[in-house]
Amino acid sequence: MKTLLTTLMSALLLAGCASQPVARGTADLGIIIERASGHIRIVENSTHTQLANVGGLGDLSHAAAVFSRDGRFAYVFGRDGGISKVDLLTHQLVKRVLQAGNSIGGAISSDGRIIAAQNYQPGGVKLFDADTLALLADIPALDPATGVVSKVVGLADLPGHRFAFSLFEAGQIWVVDASNPRQPVITRYPHIGQQPYDGLATMDGRYYMAGLYGEDGVALLDTWYPEKGVTRVLNGYGQGAEKQPVYKMPHLRGWSVAGDYAFFPSIGHKEAIVADNRSWEIRRHIPLAGQPVFVMARPDGKQVWANFAFPDNDTVQVIDVPTMKVVRTFKPCKGVLHFEFTARGDQVWLSCRDENRVEVYDTQTLERITTLPADNPSGIFFGWRAGRLGM
Amino acid sequence: MKTLLTTLMSALLLAGCASQPVARGTADLGIIIERASGHIRIVENSTHTQLANVGGLGDLSHAAAVFSRDGRFAYVFGRDGGISKVDLLTHQLVKRVLQAGNSIGGAISSDGRIIAAQNYQPGGVKLFDADTLALLADIPALDPATGVVSKVVGLADLPGHRFAFSLFEAGQIWVVDASNPRQPVITRYPHIGQQPYDGLATMDGRYYMAGLYGEDGVALLDTWYPEKGVTRVLNGYGQGAEKQPVYKMPHLRGWSVAGDYAFFPSIGHKEAIVADNRSWEIRRHIPLAGQPVFVMARPDGKQVWANFAFPDNDTVQVIDVPTMKVVRTFKPCKGVLHFEFTARGDQVWLSCRDENRVEVYDTQTLERITTLPADNPSGIFFGWRAGRLGM
Repeated sequence: MKTLLTTLMSALLLAGCASQPVARGTADLGIIIERASGHIRIVENSTHTQLANVGGLGDLSHAAAVFSRDGRFAYVFGRDGGISKVDLLTHQLVKRVLQAGNSIGGAISSDGRIIAAQNYQPGGVKLFDADTLALLADIPALDPATGVVSKVVGLADLPGHRFAFSLFEAGQIWVVDASNPRQPVITRYPHIGQQPYDGLATMDGRYYMAGLYGEDGVALLDTWYPEKGVTRVLNGYGQGAEKQPVYKMPHLRGWSVAGDYAFFPSIGHKEAIVADNRSWEIRRHIPLAGQPVFVMARPDGKQVWANFAFPDNDTVQVIDVPTMKVVRTFKPCKGVLHFEFTARGDQVWLSCRDENRVEVYDTQTLERITTLPADNPSGIFFGWRAGRLGM
Repeated sequence: MKTLLTTLMSALLLAGCASQPVARGTADLGIIIERASGHIRIVENSTHTQLANVGGLGDLSHAAAVFSRDGRFAYVFGRDGGISKVDLLTHQLVKRVLQAGNSIGGAISSDGRIIAAQNYQPGGVKLFDADTLALLADIPALDPATGVVSKVVGLADLPGHRFAFSLFEAGQIWVVDASNPRQPVITRYPHIGQQPYDGLATMDGRYYMAGLYGEDGVALLDTWYPEKGVTRVLNGYGQGAEKQPVYKMPHLRGWSVAGDYAFFPSIGHKEAIVADNRSWEIRRHIPLAGQPVFVMARPDGKQVWANFAFPDNDTVQVIDVPTMKVVRTFKPCKGVLHFEFTARGDQVWLSCRDENRVEVYDTQTLERITTLPADNPSGIFFGWRAGRLGM
């Protein structure tokens, strides 16, 4: 009898507790997007382990993610317009909405209450409750003058429950104040230039910049002085006079500010462009091994790492910012699609799509720490993003 | 029989699971120091609740805290030389070491593996394993030339497992490379000026600055160019020609960089001092309601908040950085000792020591959100610090 009781109770105890979420800190968690299979891997970067593999997230090509205010949930934005909310402690897909036909990324408001998704088809931005993913507002990207509906690109959160984004066809930047998320207030900046193809906010959420596909230069909004409107900076940024084949449009997102400079991937040229982050004048072109895709600063800004478009997508380079020189060229694997620094920059994780693995490097020694298996990995996103602006 | 089994098993299930730590995200957690009673309150800033009250932490006057890499643990540095490691999920004091006779703060290495504590008595810095709090290295602050042992102040972490700190009596800045924490490598910068009384690292971990009690000015080390040595900046910072009684030495710690400027509390004058964060030249003096203690920027840098020494310690002021004007003066309560912004700056929490409560404000509307009880609260520290440099 005693044995039966003990056995039964032990079994139930185990079952009861096992169905509980895992209790652990969330500041070192992250996810790896497995684009082909619609899965994400949940990982932690203190001891480099995989915690779970979660599926059913739909088409994850070009997927991006943000994190809940408390760090427990990841919101994954799929190419198919899906938003998937994943619990990083229970390893469950807790909610999924299909909110558009063709989408490319999202953001979370500065108070953590609102998820925003930007859409190609139909264009526009939708706002959702971060807890329930209930729709709060639908903001069509409709130009009243022409009736044209635009694809939305470059969505980023700004302080004060605001979002900024760009309208590709209309050539506009919009800033949405979602203090009342069911009745967002839109400020429109027209005539910013032709075909903004991507945008970013600086990490303090002050500047919003849109790269222009249709002309050389970048549209800049200083949100501290909105009355000055949108100005053109980085003249000569873009393809310039000698147009080259562009193998992959570079990403403007990411930590690009390092010291007194902002680093941008060139379009169609094998170089990084360095601008003064006050005047936004171009100060330098740094020759690189290929056409850069991501050019991102380590969180302390002393290094900038770059990966490249085909045929140089087996290569990664490290720029030392004090000297503005490339100090290391790696060939970690074929198909380096993305990389992510840990919160304080001691490590960088590189996704090797074509070799089904993720490589972890020590950014101080530039030595490889470890390798993790992953199925056609693309984006890597760490939970420190929960606490940052301009994501 | 069935009832007995069910009852017993339910009870055990509850007991078994209840003894487990609470599973929740840790990115919105924080602690409030209750200095008189040696307790901390564990709080969360999403819905402003208190989760637990943990005691036995010793003398917490002037206490400070850092967070583990995963965000689960807080390390509280007491005035009595104690380091207390508190589990924010089980609400237990899991480890406590008394490592010095008189201490004032600590730091955590950029990889999260090493805790450093700075000591007044005996002077010096000790390094501990972040998991076990086992001693790794003892670095006496001994000037070989004079035999003088210094009080250590202004300890901050730098990228690459380094720490910077200042020696009050010796007038030196030291940078310790703890890549091998049992054999730390020390770089000494002598003759930085008289009596450094506090120090800070900028939030990218590039600059280390020490305020000088014995003269007007600040000692600056640009760790990107260590060969340039320590230079003197902010000449005129300090008491200046017209010395005033200093009611409380201001704190240099905190987020002081906002936009293109760094904000410092004046010593003995009722003003904030604004310097260009490239040239470190003083650009402006902003008159304030009292002698400032903390002058800290909201994470986006668009606002700077200040509290004050007695007799103005019932007042808080908000500077709008674009216009450099004070836009709001509050009198939230008597004895405002400290304040802390949430990770993305939507809220600020103010400790009201003399009225036994903590006030939470919305930084956008500048309206009070809520009030929480606390026993003589002093420092407030949120878990986002786990992911930041220069703390």
